[in-house]
Amino acid sequence: MEASVFHEKLTAVLLWSCPDRKGLVSHIARFLFEHGGNIVDLDEHVNRQESMFFLRVAWDMSDFTIAPDKFGEKFLPLATEYRAHWSIRLGNENRRLAIFVSQHDHCLQDILWRRELGEFRAEISFIVSNHPDAGVLAERYHIPFHVFPISEENREQQEAKELKLLGEANVDTIILARYMQILSPNFVSRFPHRIVNIHHSFLPAFAGGNPYKQAYDRGVKIIGATSHYVTDLLDEGPIIEQDIIRISHKDSLDDLIRKGRDLERLVLARALRLHLDDRVLVHGRKTVVFD
Amino acid sequence: MEASVFHEKLTAVLLWSCPDRKGLVSHIARFLFEHGGNIVDLDEHVNRQESMFFLRVAWDMSDFTIAPDKFGEKFLPLATEYRAHWSIRLGNENRRLAIFVSQHDHCLQDILWRRELGEFRAEISFIVSNHPDAGVLAERYHIPFHVFPISEENREQQEAKELKLLGEANVDTIILARYMQILSPNFVSRFPHRIVNIHHSFLPAFAGGNPYKQAYDRGVKIIGATSHYVTDLLDEGPIIEQDIIRISHKDSLDDLIRKGRDLERLVLARALRLHLDDRVLVHGRKTVVFD
Amino acid sequence: MEASVFHEKLTAVLLWSCPDRKGLVSHIARFLFEHGGNIVDLDEHVNRQESMFFLRVAWDMSDFTIAPDKFGEKFLPLATEYRAHWSIRLGNENRRLAIFVSQHDHCLQDILWRRELGEFRAEISFIVSNHPDAGVLAERYHIPFHVFPISEENREQQEAKELKLLGEANVDTIILARYMQILSPNFVSRFPHRIVNIHHSFLPAFAGGNPYKQAYDRGVKIIGATSHYVTDLLDEGPIIEQDIIRISHKDSLDDLIRKGRDLERLVLARALRLHLDDRVLVHGRKTVVFD
Amino acid sequence: MEASVFHEKLTAVLLWSCPDRKGLVSHIARFLFEHGGNIVDLDEHVNRQESMFFLRVAWDMSDFTIAPDKFGEKFLPLATEYRAHWSIRLGNENRRLAIFVSQHDHCLQDILWRRELGEFRAEISFIVSNHPDAGVLAERYHIPFHVFPISEENREQQEAKELKLLGEANVDTIILARYMQILSPNFVSRFPHRIVNIHHSFLPAFAGGNPYKQAYDRGVKIIGATSHYVTDLLDEGPIIEQDIIRISHKDSLDDLIRKGRDLERLVLARALRLHLDDRVLVHGRKTVVFD
Repeated sequence: MEASVFHEKLTAVLLWSCPDRKGLVSHIARFLFEHGGNIVDLDEHVNRQESMFFLRVAWDMSDFTIAPDKFGEKFLPLATEYRAHWSIRLGNENRRLAIFVSQHDHCLQDILWRRELGEFRAEISFIVSNHPDAGVLAERYHIPFHVFPISEENREQQEAKELKLLGEANVDTIILARYMQILSPNFVSRFPHRIVNIHHSFLPAFAGGNPYKQAYDRGVKIIGATSHYVTDLLDEGPIIEQDIIRISHKDSLDDLIRKGRDLERLVLARALRLHLDDRVLVHGRKTVVFD
Repeated sequence: MEASVFHEKLTAVLLWSCPDRKGLVSHIARFLFEHGGNIVDLDEHVNRQESMFFLRVAWDMSDFTIAPDKFGEKFLPLATEYRAHWSIRLGNENRRLAIFVSQHDHCLQDILWRRELGEFRAEISFIVSNHPDAGVLAERYHIPFHVFPISEENREQQEAKELKLLGEANVDTIILARYMQILSPNFVSRFPHRIVNIHHSFLPAFAGGNPYKQAYDRGVKIIGATSHYVTDLLDEGPIIEQDIIRISHKDSLDDLIRKGRDLERLVLARALRLHLDDRVLVHGRKTVVFD
Repeated sequence: MEASVFHEKLTAVLLWSCPDRKGLVSHIARFLFEHGGNIVDLDEHVNRQESMFFLRVAWDMSDFTIAPDKFGEKFLPLATEYRAHWSIRLGNENRRLAIFVSQHDHCLQDILWRRELGEFRAEISFIVSNHPDAGVLAERYHIPFHVFPISEENREQQEAKELKLLGEANVDTIILARYMQILSPNFVSRFPHRIVNIHHSFLPAFAGGNPYKQAYDRGVKIIGATSHYVTDLLDEGPIIEQDIIRISHKDSLDDLIRKGRDLERLVLARALRLHLDDRVLVHGRKTVVFD
Repeated sequence: MEASVFHEKLTAVLLWSCPDRKGLVSHIARFLFEHGGNIVDLDEHVNRQESMFFLRVAWDMSDFTIAPDKFGEKFLPLATEYRAHWSIRLGNENRRLAIFVSQHDHCLQDILWRRELGEFRAEISFIVSNHPDAGVLAERYHIPFHVFPISEENREQQEAKELKLLGEANVDTIILARYMQILSPNFVSRFPHRIVNIHHSFLPAFAGGNPYKQAYDRGVKIIGATSHYVTDLLDEGPIIEQDIIRISHKDSLDDLIRKGRDLERLVLARALRLHLDDRVLVHGRKTVVFD
């Protein structure tokens, strides 16, 4: 993955998908060039089977002649002509994140640690948990911490409170860092492709609860972790990143859990970095990852 | 894995499992020592959760004082005392293999090539296929080739013919090298933990037909291959070996198939080598692999 | 890696590197669009530290309005303006390969096998060896085979004969598939970045002779293989692809050699495929690999 | 690796190496059995090339009839008979560690975090640094922190102070968690095979300073990290563990450093765990790792 260019200069990133047609790259590149945008990164992909075109292009805005608030208006004719789905991020404003966690805080710890090191370019608005345990960690890093215990009865009210907080803080992306509650369809619908989960198995193997126990009982020789966007279908959302580690008959269930911790935090960190750099384009239930 | 010792000297290998008890290693080691067996390799494993003991021990038979045909009788009291499941291979007689294949012959090719290089210590008695395609390859390596086309109607008769051949050739182990027919429970029961299959996915993900298509449609970022013993439950047998390879949105279904070919042949070769070196001990639906 | 597009349609591939400047992608894309070239794949990379721009672009030539023999003339002004190094491949003519091998023929075997499966898009003009051993394999695949034993005394004359053969057959790329002779600077200079070697170590570790022995003696826990372009400096050429495999104290030197074989043939095959698809751009002693 | 058994019961671990001879396993197993030691883990390895025998055996001391302070006396005849090198750990006393660190504190952070989670069975006596930076982290985890700035002139005196501290705290093992000073031969000789270092390259590639810069300049496609015991020869000590991660031309030097951080802390943690569980046996400049 390229070193982030964002620290130095004002950069814009466009993600675009549309039915494949002739001249696409040329038209888009010309549009940017004619408005003073210097392309610093362009990656495209054509899926021939579906005849679909996908693009990520980043350009330096130093000499860009379109004001951010006028971009949509100017760009619309081009996007309409190609019947494109597109999204744009103009400028360097940091993403605002909320992290949801339950009792296992290793993924949370890792994200906080990486942010301190400058690996992520984002602000963490607050941490939400259904348990008080992660409070110590939140305090250590001086991040607001909210506890919302969840039961079948109070889920709707608690989610309403969470949504209020998320709205007030203008949160862009939610990270489920081993958050063991299922979010309601209503909640999920408010953050389409903006809730990043880590599941502690190599999906689609061992979806659902206790994946390490499932893996142990099946006797697999490799375990995995999967980071994906959350959709209404549990553990079925578009996959951003996966990785694995070898195990053997010598590993007890506790060993799987211990080894899995390292995997979970690495995979979630990589997925989060890809998401925050606007490198993930969702198409149907799959992703195009411009890394 | 250790270099095979079999080329130099006459070696015996004992695989043993029983409920864990005190003094097990000591008793077995003493038994061998007292009969002139020089232990050249000993590996044991205790599963604490199930309180089970597993052992693989290999010894040099140069000065062993028990004749092969008397071993069972002499060893029985010890095995009975510990309520052990055990199997023994005395001497260096090569295993006799039969390879079953359908139309994709890359795994077959790889096994023949490795055997030519001396990677496997086994004789290939014959190749069976439900298609004539692999005949060219069989001929190239001078191995008898039998075609048994299979349909729902003739399965029973064809398997009877195959079983007859297997019996006549005294075949010990069957390798399903991308054999796309399901064997009947009757057939499978004749070769318990002696039929080695390669499934072209990371089981339990994508069991059943067309695993690469399933993987492509799900949008996973990693594909795998699994070698396992065949049981009556399709793709559910004890796993011997697995491995994976990274893919991306750039990979078409054809790319998955191409990349998977390399994976399948490596994983099957590793599993086969482990099996032929008596390094795999089946316990329930799992394996202990003494590598 | 994307499925090769070459089977279906006439495609051109341009590789380009130059000092980074504004408007590069736009100009090149426009040039192609204005001459009827439909871009099917574009990947670029900017190295910020060196301020260098690298591009690979492939386009469909169905409606391309510049005849192949006029392309250079038409394209030159653009390339000159940006002080670019560039190379172009127009149309689908297969590359012509010569494979050099010594006594270990597993890499040769693997290349022949993959080509038979259609994994490579190339013609193998002939095989050269300093030993007669590979002749059997050459014959099996009906490929001309030439033996040129090499000694310090006759190297120059033998290379002259080889160069004559290579010229007559119009060979484009030479593959050193475990060829254990060092080519003279004169020979190498005739095929700049067109001789692909496989070295059986993780370079720069264990350059030179007997890398597995070196690895065994050092007690490393991982061994590797490296495919690189041959230059005058032994084992110092630009690296195309590397991979590794875990080993342990249990592995004898023979085990390293056996495990390494699998690694060597996979790494060489991947490098060769990248080279043949024009995905490798050499810059100084490094490569940009557009995979 | 097996779940540590140490939490539950008093366990002893014997590491042993000697010239290979008949009856070794039997004799040792019988010795333990006859004194009431129940073997819970036994792993042996024979290096045939060197005709050397290596053993790790752990036993439950609940019914062991030899008092810890009498073990040496009782065991000596057996060890002498086989001319063995051996070491024993009786009982569950935690190892005492000192961690040395310079400015990069990610490995330190990781060790502290893992210990908090219970992954390591050890006490951290204190942290030493040549810079004050890690003090914050030490304080956060309530661990004594000592700063000893090092120059060519004061090295001897500073090491003397460090050795005094190490002696007073009865420190068993020193971890160099990215400690960028070279220890003097005198210092190293006090802790033979008890100083664990992490080097941020795949040794023997890129020994010495700035390995990521070296890797970047060479254009390798994979980077690594190596944990080894410190000896007088810089970066030449016996290797305990190594691992790698893929990189590409897209990765800047900063990306290598970032990706390497994850590698370094995982590799050091694995090596440390192996060391603390007495699973590493040094033989010459190589290790036998009973994992």
